[in-house]
Amino acid sequence: MKINQKPRAMMFPAPAVVASAYDEDGKADCCTLAFATMCSHHPPAVMIAINTTLKRKTLKSILHTGEFCIGFPSVEHVAETDYMGIASGYDTDKIRDVGFTFSDGKVVNAPIINEFAASLECRLIHTADVGSHTQLTGEIVNVRAEEDILDEKGKISYQKLDPICYDDVSHTYFSIGSHVGDGFKIGLKFRK
Amino acid sequence: MKINQKPRAMMFPAPAVVASAYDEDGKADCCTLAFATMCSHHPPAVMIAINTTLKRKTLKSILHTGEFCIGFPSVEHVAETDYMGIASGYDTDKIRDVGFTFSDGKVVNAPIINEFAASLECRLIHTADVGSHTQLTGEIVNVRAEEDILDEKGKISYQKLDPICYDDVSHTYFSIGSHVGDGFKIGLKFRK
Repeated sequence: MKINQKPRAMMFPAPAVVASAYDEDGKADCCTLAFATMCSHHPPAVMIAINTTLKRKTLKSILHTGEFCIGFPSVEHVAETDYMGIASGYDTDKIRDVGFTFSDGKVVNAPIINEFAASLECRLIHTADVGSHTQLTGEIVNVRAEEDILDEKGKISYQKLDPICYDDVSHTYFSIGSHVGDGFKIGLKFRK
Repeated sequence: MKINQKPRAMMFPAPAVVASAYDEDGKADCCTLAFATMCSHHPPAVMIAINTTLKRKTLKSILHTGEFCIGFPSVEHVAETDYMGIASGYDTDKIRDVGFTFSDGKVVNAPIINEFAASLECRLIHTADVGSHTQLTGEIVNVRAEEDILDEKGKISYQKLDPICYDDVSHTYFSIGSHVGDGFKIGLKFRK
């Protein structure tokens, strides 16, 4: 039997990704996000939402430079990823605290965290304040990936990347599991 | 060593969820989406992006009624979910084709697919055309969940729901895997 529940933000699954940007003084800053999605194919783009009601330094930095990177952590970096969502860039240097390093983006003026095997370089193309959060849409102008997470076709391998799922209801992280079907294929049996 | 890749939309992980709405004639319609995220805590809200460059019936329906539901499929329904992303509501009745049924939303004028164990009822609060897609932000005004996917605290259990991850690079579906850490906890060890 179905029941009603008190409304709250939910998405199953949500990602755990890390947005990074340079602040007004050129210092690298980052924060972990579960509010992130692809949002356009042409141009390729992602949308992230960051809380405007709290003093989030990374939001301020992205609005300042108009550029940011999105790093995709692997499960091996779940503790570092969690920390980057707990601490504030106003209080500490989160990248240094976890022993990570960064490089300048190849295309945009934003830091890429070296330890993440895949990252997007993004240029801000749209913003909107909706509810408690600011929606930031970034055109993806470059993708950086470690060669050893690529498949035989040169594409990023989901299983080699080993990304982190975040359950915002229980505040826990999960790995991805097993392959359960091929897109645009497993559903064809229902075609009349 | 890191290499540059041709820009394309990416998110790891992305969800596979189903948006549903009534069309202008009151007929239930739905489509599968990987472009979906939480985007606000207050009010609770989700943002979905639907391709405006193709004739997507569900987009038209949502813009018509201003209300929609988001269903969270479990792995057991991966084939049905895939089909709902292949077929068009202009050509066929996708819900009927897969043998599913629907009920009226309890709060909004949109259909809830009965077979999905958890669904959100949403009211459109913001739209934006960015790139090839229309971004639709919906305030979550009700959550419907099957009692048997709730944990002992009455919250939706990630593992009981068994949601589907979609890898848009390889066009394949994955289950969620194992618990790899507790949020706001596993990262505390880096605090100085």
